Amino acid sequence: MPPEVQIPLNAVWVVTAAILVFFMQAGFALVESGMVRAKNAVNVIMKNYSDMCVGAIGFWAVGYGLMFGASGGWYGTTKFFLGDATPWEYCLVFFQMMFAATAATIVSGALAERIRFSAYLLGSFLVTALIYPVVGGWAWNEAGWLKKAGFLDFAGSTVVHSVGAWCALAGILALGPRLGRYAKDGTPRDIPGHNLPFVALGGLILWFGWFGFNAGSTTEANPDIGRIALNTHLAGAAAVAATILLRAFTGRPPLLGAIVNGSLGGLVAITAGCAYVSPGAAVLIGAAAALIIPAATAVLDALRIDDAVGAIPVHGCCGVWGTLAVGIFKDGTPSAAQVGVQALGCAATFAVVFPTAYLMYRAIGWTMELRVRTVDEQRGLDFAEHEEVGYPEFQDGLLHGGAGNEAADELTPAGRN
Amino acid sequence: MPPEVQIPLNAVWVVTAAILVFFMQAGFALVESGMVRAKNAVNVIMKNYSDMCVGAIGFWAVGYGLMFGASGGWYGTTKFFLGDATPWEYCLVFFQMMFAATAATIVSGALAERIRFSAYLLGSFLVTALIYPVVGGWAWNEAGWLKKAGFLDFAGSTVVHSVGAWCALAGILALGPRLGRYAKDGTPRDIPGHNLPFVALGGLILWFGWFGFNAGSTTEANPDIGRIALNTHLAGAAAVAATILLRAFTGRPPLLGAIVNGSLGGLVAITAGCAYVSPGAAVLIGAAAALIIPAATAVLDALRIDDAVGAIPVHGCCGVWGTLAVGIFKDGTPSAAQVGVQALGCAATFAVVFPTAYLMYRAIGWTMELRVRTVDEQRGLDFAEHEEVGYPEFQDGLLHGGAGNEAADELTPAGRN
Amino acid sequence: MPPEVQIPLNAVWVVTAAILVFFMQAGFALVESGMVRAKNAVNVIMKNYSDMCVGAIGFWAVGYGLMFGASGGWYGTTKFFLGDATPWEYCLVFFQMMFAATAATIVSGALAERIRFSAYLLGSFLVTALIYPVVGGWAWNEAGWLKKAGFLDFAGSTVVHSVGAWCALAGILALGPRLGRYAKDGTPRDIPGHNLPFVALGGLILWFGWFGFNAGSTTEANPDIGRIALNTHLAGAAAVAATILLRAFTGRPPLLGAIVNGSLGGLVAITAGCAYVSPGAAVLIGAAAALIIPAATAVLDALRIDDAVGAIPVHGCCGVWGTLAVGIFKDGTPSAAQVGVQALGCAATFAVVFPTAYLMYRAIGWTMELRVRTVDEQRGLDFAEHEEVGYPEFQDGLLHGGAGNEAADELTPAGRN
Repeated sequence: MPPEVQIPLNAVWVVTAAILVFFMQAGFALVESGMVRAKNAVNVIMKNYSDMCVGAIGFWAVGYGLMFGASGGWYGTTKFFLGDATPWEYCLVFFQMMFAATAATIVSGALAERIRFSAYLLGSFLVTALIYPVVGGWAWNEAGWLKKAGFLDFAGSTVVHSVGAWCALAGILALGPRLGRYAKDGTPRDIPGHNLPFVALGGLILWFGWFGFNAGSTTEANPDIGRIALNTHLAGAAAVAATILLRAFTGRPPLLGAIVNGSLGGLVAITAGCAYVSPGAAVLIGAAAALIIPAATAVLDALRIDDAVGAIPVHGCCGVWGTLAVGIFKDGTPSAAQVGVQALGCAATFAVVFPTAYLMYRAIGWTMELRVRTVDEQRGLDFAEHEEVGYPEFQDGLLHGGAGNEAADELTPAGRN
Repeated sequence: MPPEVQIPLNAVWVVTAAILVFFMQAGFALVESGMVRAKNAVNVIMKNYSDMCVGAIGFWAVGYGLMFGASGGWYGTTKFFLGDATPWEYCLVFFQMMFAATAATIVSGALAERIRFSAYLLGSFLVTALIYPVVGGWAWNEAGWLKKAGFLDFAGSTVVHSVGAWCALAGILALGPRLGRYAKDGTPRDIPGHNLPFVALGGLILWFGWFGFNAGSTTEANPDIGRIALNTHLAGAAAVAATILLRAFTGRPPLLGAIVNGSLGGLVAITAGCAYVSPGAAVLIGAAAALIIPAATAVLDALRIDDAVGAIPVHGCCGVWGTLAVGIFKDGTPSAAQVGVQALGCAATFAVVFPTAYLMYRAIGWTMELRVRTVDEQRGLDFAEHEEVGYPEFQDGLLHGGAGNEAADELTPAGRN
Repeated sequence: MPPEVQIPLNAVWVVTAAILVFFMQAGFALVESGMVRAKNAVNVIMKNYSDMCVGAIGFWAVGYGLMFGASGGWYGTTKFFLGDATPWEYCLVFFQMMFAATAATIVSGALAERIRFSAYLLGSFLVTALIYPVVGGWAWNEAGWLKKAGFLDFAGSTVVHSVGAWCALAGILALGPRLGRYAKDGTPRDIPGHNLPFVALGGLILWFGWFGFNAGSTTEANPDIGRIALNTHLAGAAAVAATILLRAFTGRPPLLGAIVNGSLGGLVAITAGCAYVSPGAAVLIGAAAALIIPAATAVLDALRIDDAVGAIPVHGCCGVWGTLAVGIFKDGTPSAAQVGVQALGCAATFAVVFPTAYLMYRAIGWTMELRVRTVDEQRGLDFAEHEEVGYPEFQDGLLHGGAGNEAADELTPAGRN
């Protein structure tokens, strides 16, 4: 194909795909706000909304250069503030910026209902500007050491999803569990989300955007995007079917949260291998998420690690599985050597991201408070941090209307805007 | 255009369109959950979420081969588990899989608030794997007998929408109406939906996805997609304008549900002919939906056929109208012969789909219960089948927050996940 | 590129972009309904849903011809009902129709909670069919006098957003403020929106659609779409970051509405110049929205101009800023002459749109009532105009379920549909 056709056609595809990836922000916002209590709904949505914004500035200024600049294998040193990019490179920057935002926003749900807004945003800025780009460049920069070692992560099971999850794990350990999440004897107590339809809608929006995430990672318009999208869909579908069957066989009801998180786990798992495996393998890779998520959740509960939305089982554990699965299912022939390289990539990512992020959250905690006060956590972060509530008319069970709404007046003094 | 350009360009368009069609699942989920009572909101959303998943597995394994495999005119016998598909064919599989999911999920709303989750999913699997592909292949397989007879259904007014609606009709007759839907003297009682903003948002998402549904049905990137998309939009718009005017002239208020269902009826109606007619004809085809839907609703009410969301008027009756309209408006010249072929297609589809689906639902009812128990229907399927509620904090009119939420605790014992 | 490739490729891009712009309707619907009280949620959503429908008919019949028909510089006189359009021109019509709908629907939020449904729809029809096309043709018709003067508005900061905002301002002045919005001494009273998560979701949907709005305005597939999309994103992101910082430095909490409106203001501002400026300039252009919106809001409050959703600060004032900014940042070299032409375009647009729209709303008020009765405004427009409520089960703070729902029965007599 002549370049005067190739470049515009690639641009159309990559920009379209990036726009779909952008929309995953809405999916995260809905899943996370639906899974938390109403008193924290505004706060968690605003974390999603804002982290992609401060992250975009950081990725534009520093992150893209660290990730894709000229590199000795460990980090890039050119292209800060993008330098003199060609029209085509701007398409790639736009696409990669959306990926960086996805990695960062995974954290927001796990730390929901107790981390301070300002502390969260600072952490998110550093993840998007520094941690994600450096580690991501290992696998995706042409000169990256993991790439040169043969590591394969087509669309980011490890590069995006696990990185987000290990940052989340670090944040959880720095923060501690939510009040009341574990009884004194360590028994976990379920804290139900306030709006389950939001969780399902968010799951569908994430799924929708995932087609751009995975099929766009060709970064060119080639007909393989059909199989990649099909594999993506089948993995998510198989994860849901397996989740429902597994729960039915073990006498448990088909919980909405289990089904939605199951689908997301299947989608995370196929992300690394979507371009390398057959549809049948995609079904197997996705279905395994139905086993991995409950097992990982049980481990977290045993360790009293309070992941408010299940980000670590979904993005971390399914991300590792999907990365390893490339070595098993690629081209239909298992390769122990490839599995080894994949495991190396997973381990190296964890070994750097987790401690770095843990140190970062601790350092944030030293310089500014990391966690809201107990009384604010009880009252809810919406009121404590934003001085507003998500549903003012439904606040005390009575539908208030009109300017005479006293509860709302308390919250919103005249002229506050 | 040389094939090395044509194929990637077609792939970009068809995959993009298929992704839009996927998103229609979110539209159906919102329209249907918004139109039912809060106590069934989780259940109907989970039916939408899950039917596309089990359906995807069925369509991958069996359905695609039945629909597009080598066929003697009645059903395909090759390409099960896709066989050795080319990259381009994977694009088509992905696109067609989304269509199959649309046909299946139309059923979920009509049967809402009383069909068991497991029974519904089994039925949905069979519709997606067997019923839809066989009948769909008549019109869309190159060797299909309806196609050879000259039947024209560009994007599926009959193939997708009517098939879904006739399955829904069969299910309704097998299930019976919801408790309290008809008074003893047969007077219908309105059961208001619990979240009308969801209904409108769902309608807009469906509309958004419909552009992929109709304009993607070119299955190639050709400039006709502009007129197809324009016709689609004008038909939906005309249906809304006509609905509002008709209601105003007859002294009835502009109900949200009537406007949204009106728009969907207009979109269904233009689906068969969107590529064959002028924008002016699209306006007329769409506007007719404003007459068809209330008339069909009145007939259903008279027969005590309880279609919880109006799926039969919208997808069935407007689907027939749109299919017939191809014979009237194609190329601006009415053709009695074409109307006859179109009517044959509609009749054959009904004659096979309705009894088959009715038998299927009856058989499901014999082997497992089809309908929830009366007490469970009263309490709501969310609690009875999923052991959770959609909005736990708003459950008894008081906003509960925190782990001390007793009502939620009852529903979600510790460690249940 | 040969035309047999160029035209289909352009069609794919422009139609895809137009579909994204369509989806902005859902964004407006959610932002506006979330920002009003629950008693008006159905009404404002239905205004959004319906205005694009009646507007589509008007733009098809008259508007497109007025805007893009053969013109002496002031208005087009051909192409009514589209005439004999080529396949490619239908793509453009579809794209432009979505833009017209965006301009019109900006009005609905500003006038929310008091304008009658029928009066609003008539006004919206006239805006889409007459006011927007005439003024828009000045800048975008090849023969338009503003275009010939050198006025640059790439995607419509002035042509779309300011036009909508000045119509909104006219409507507000014709209608007056909502009951209770200003105390007797003129002090503004905040009227909190009923569903803040909807506002944030709507903001993200608008942002998503905006990529189609701006990058689609190339109306061809060229690789510049990457930079345009990147600029769009950075401007929105910078506006959010600046809003948060500004509020933090002045001791005010990060209100959801302020952050969402901030992002929209940044997106409006970059719309005129997204194709002409560098990413660094986009950051500056967007960040300025954080200053413009609160300043404009304060002026409106001082003048008791009750803009229910902040449409004038966001779409009007940021639209003017973005239009002027083209003269400052284009190609990195400020040009006083260009700023002058830009200011001329802004002034001419205001000078024609505002009085025309004001006269129009006054004339509508003379022939039919413009504003609902006081008692209806108090009870809410959902009940008064639609005879339904958005959330019937949450209406009096108790979750009502089943056909025995008396409150709902009152609203929905049997057979009313």
